Amino acid sequence: MSTALLSVSDKTGIIDFSKELKNLGWNIISSSGTAKVLKENFVECQEISEVTEFPEILDGRVKTLNPRIHGGILAIRKKTDHIEHLKRHGIGTIDIVAVSLYPFESTINKIPKPADKKIDQNVIENIDIGGVALLRAAAKNYKDVIVICDINDYKIVIENLKNNSITEELKLTLAAKAFRHTAYYDSLISTYLTYEKFPAQAAIPLKKLSELRYGENPHQEAALYSNGIEQDKPVVISAKQLHGKELSYNNYLDLEAAWRLVHEFNNPACAVIKHNNPCGCAESTNIKNAYLKALDCDPVSAFGGIIAFNKAVEKDTAAEIIKLFVECVIAPDYSKEALGILTQKKNIRILIQTIPYKEEKNSVEYRIISHGMLAQDRDNQLLNEIKLMTKRQPTKEESEALDFAWKVSKHIKSNAIVLARGRQTVGVGAGQMSRIDSLKIAAEKMKSVKHGLDEKLFPLVLASDAFFPFPDVVEESAKVGVTAIAQPGGSIKDNESIKSADDRNIAMIAAGMRHFRH
Amino acid sequence: MSTALLSVSDKTGIIDFSKELKNLGWNIISSSGTAKVLKENFVECQEISEVTEFPEILDGRVKTLNPRIHGGILAIRKKTDHIEHLKRHGIGTIDIVAVSLYPFESTINKIPKPADKKIDQNVIENIDIGGVALLRAAAKNYKDVIVICDINDYKIVIENLKNNSITEELKLTLAAKAFRHTAYYDSLISTYLTYEKFPAQAAIPLKKLSELRYGENPHQEAALYSNGIEQDKPVVISAKQLHGKELSYNNYLDLEAAWRLVHEFNNPACAVIKHNNPCGCAESTNIKNAYLKALDCDPVSAFGGIIAFNKAVEKDTAAEIIKLFVECVIAPDYSKEALGILTQKKNIRILIQTIPYKEEKNSVEYRIISHGMLAQDRDNQLLNEIKLMTKRQPTKEESEALDFAWKVSKHIKSNAIVLARGRQTVGVGAGQMSRIDSLKIAAEKMKSVKHGLDEKLFPLVLASDAFFPFPDVVEESAKVGVTAIAQPGGSIKDNESIKSADDRNIAMIAAGMRHFRH
Repeated sequence: MSTALLSVSDKTGIIDFSKELKNLGWNIISSSGTAKVLKENFVECQEISEVTEFPEILDGRVKTLNPRIHGGILAIRKKTDHIEHLKRHGIGTIDIVAVSLYPFESTINKIPKPADKKIDQNVIENIDIGGVALLRAAAKNYKDVIVICDINDYKIVIENLKNNSITEELKLTLAAKAFRHTAYYDSLISTYLTYEKFPAQAAIPLKKLSELRYGENPHQEAALYSNGIEQDKPVVISAKQLHGKELSYNNYLDLEAAWRLVHEFNNPACAVIKHNNPCGCAESTNIKNAYLKALDCDPVSAFGGIIAFNKAVEKDTAAEIIKLFVECVIAPDYSKEALGILTQKKNIRILIQTIPYKEEKNSVEYRIISHGMLAQDRDNQLLNEIKLMTKRQPTKEESEALDFAWKVSKHIKSNAIVLARGRQTVGVGAGQMSRIDSLKIAAEKMKSVKHGLDEKLFPLVLASDAFFPFPDVVEESAKVGVTAIAQPGGSIKDNESIKSADDRNIAMIAAGMRHFRH
Repeated sequence: MSTALLSVSDKTGIIDFSKELKNLGWNIISSSGTAKVLKENFVECQEISEVTEFPEILDGRVKTLNPRIHGGILAIRKKTDHIEHLKRHGIGTIDIVAVSLYPFESTINKIPKPADKKIDQNVIENIDIGGVALLRAAAKNYKDVIVICDINDYKIVIENLKNNSITEELKLTLAAKAFRHTAYYDSLISTYLTYEKFPAQAAIPLKKLSELRYGENPHQEAALYSNGIEQDKPVVISAKQLHGKELSYNNYLDLEAAWRLVHEFNNPACAVIKHNNPCGCAESTNIKNAYLKALDCDPVSAFGGIIAFNKAVEKDTAAEIIKLFVECVIAPDYSKEALGILTQKKNIRILIQTIPYKEEKNSVEYRIISHGMLAQDRDNQLLNEIKLMTKRQPTKEESEALDFAWKVSKHIKSNAIVLARGRQTVGVGAGQMSRIDSLKIAAEKMKSVKHGLDEKLFPLVLASDAFFPFPDVVEESAKVGVTAIAQPGGSIKDNESIKSADDRNIAMIAAGMRHFRH
């Protein structure tokens, strides 16, 4: 006769499971809470304290941490000395261990991590010690023990017990799952308790939200994971999809880029993203104007793009959007009429995210490299002290445009050059291996911008995500009509660029901060 | 009198630590292995089995999993009922828990994960159960217990004990560290035991190799992490740096890109990377030619670039390299003379990696998004069945060049267009939001390529990382002299592109596979 140990915080399914085990002739041992439920449902079981001949103490903090339990789990059945040890101490083997842990994840989703390091007692109490030890012991000895850490696995275990088809492979699969569960559990605990930025060891928690149709390309399988924390997630993975096909891997990447860019601005703004780069961005007095101006920058590239708004989308904007083939739209809200218009198109994905994007302080991002990760602060700063580099100061209008262009440049893959008039991009040079090429591309783009909008009246300005190693960018800027420039400054040849600007009456400011993005 | 429990797999420093504790008037409890070492060194201690009145059983699998131990750790000292429980059962409090776990990490670094799921018994034995339970229990009760999971922390604990300066903050710091340690430990175990690609829960192990000077930009702090697995790491983080300043965040990213690209080729090859994109790549009969041809593609962008070779660098190549300002060189080897020449420059970073890059099967990569991760297969495939799309078949020379260009296109940020002659890029269009722009950029680049090399004799071919939604790319290609094209195929307007190619006697093949890279 085999024995199962059941110790479950989540009691869902436990009665059926235990009844099935009983029908198959199993003994059941349970911790007090589980035992109570079983007995109420007329399932016979032995309490852990009867097995251990030791009571549960410390409000249940110590129940199963006992050699009479762990010996029964960890004994290697084919080792005669192990079996001899069990006999000598009157310990019976335990052949199934089913545990559902204290709900640490849901607890911390109710109690955000405190800034003052005073950890709530409720959080501490929901760190499961005994349950994790049971799961880990059973998973270690998987060749002899079936371990269940997920209430959804009762069924598969019962089926295989009935069919006498429990294999070592199934037991390994369940053991690996148990270790993933404890790894995930402890990664949540340690992330919650940690205030260090780059600790010597860590683990990143991953909780699968969905499989994706495919990855960046159709031959790559893919999935979407969250980090388990749900508080106020102002991000794409918590946005609600109102319409359209499921989001693709590339949609998630581009939506994130679009959502972050558009939240650089307080006034109504729109960003159009293709291949993780903005092909147009504008801020205006209303959303429709912002959209038209953003689109204007590069209407060819906008085909199949991702569009983000920082304010609600109204009817008239929706009517403009559906003229274009668009993959996704994300906005904080839609009027009923706008939604009616947009959803006429079957394939457009409409997302609503009511929480604006906000850069978190001390937020670390990871970039995978082979066999490792690069970790860094998110680039969530914007401007150091601005310094005037040239003789001429930017005019008020130039300053306005420079501020706008600088914010956009932060969101473009390097080397990035932004040409802007007013609060509208008129040329974006992205992802080039040389800065002068980015300028040439931006200038080329600018030629295609329609001038039906009032921005033709505004001065042309340029923002560069990194400094100028040579004065060539200033020279070329002047040729295309740029009158003011924002760049980080700090090149050893700054003087040459400054002279070049002064010679051409260009105003140039140093933002004191680089924004490489790769 | 306070009590410390010491159970260490790694005995380094344990004697000094325990002597210091004894001097401070502490009792010591130890598991058998640790106790033996202490007693040999005349440090008095009580064995765990004496405390538990229960022997170690199952070859040490069950030692500390006992209520007389865990009760002493987990009791909340300020709760009178907890203290009452201890008294009733004759359990003493344990106030320090120092554990070093069984060396799972070094074990799996000797025993690679088996393909057949037959887990080596030595790996299983090195999964620590009791030690993890001790650390977790002590860390949970950190307000009352000092937990030490790292032999390097003995000193700080002793110092603070001596100064009577143990604070709750220090205890929390140590507890968080213990949970990071168990999270990391279990993430290694679960990764080793898991054969599933996208499990519902998981944790990514992170082991810090170094802090970096800064991240992508100077205002971002950064660090480099490995995944803990060291076997045959054909990657940049295991490359040996022979010369130059420490690697930067951006160096790691670019070196990875360069190293992967150059290993698409069997003959001597060179790749020059800037901002994560190749600005030149060539395969030739020798490394010097490969370098000169790769450089030729865009010598302006190559300034400050990262250069990778798939074969040893000799004197004559080194003499060419130092004519240019180069950030990093990585190669499988260097002749002594070559190294002598390269190291004349103080700032150049020289790396050697003897293991060639090889794409692993079933290797998953992660991409961070806010509060989550996108997971996907690495793009480690290259060609599906090649299908001829046009009437004319590529000539042998065109096919050669197309094969080369196709391989390079996989490593360029989308939209990617490669123009090549022979096995040399002559124009790279990268990171554009519209495909036709990438072609225009590549064509513009081509104008600047010197034709001192024999490639001018070869036909001009084009590779595109994704299909053509319109026939414009084919039309523009013809204008710049392209005679053969490789693209994935699969657009609903393929027919228009095919007709356009046929009309212009261009040979076009469908590779059946897209290579978006963002």
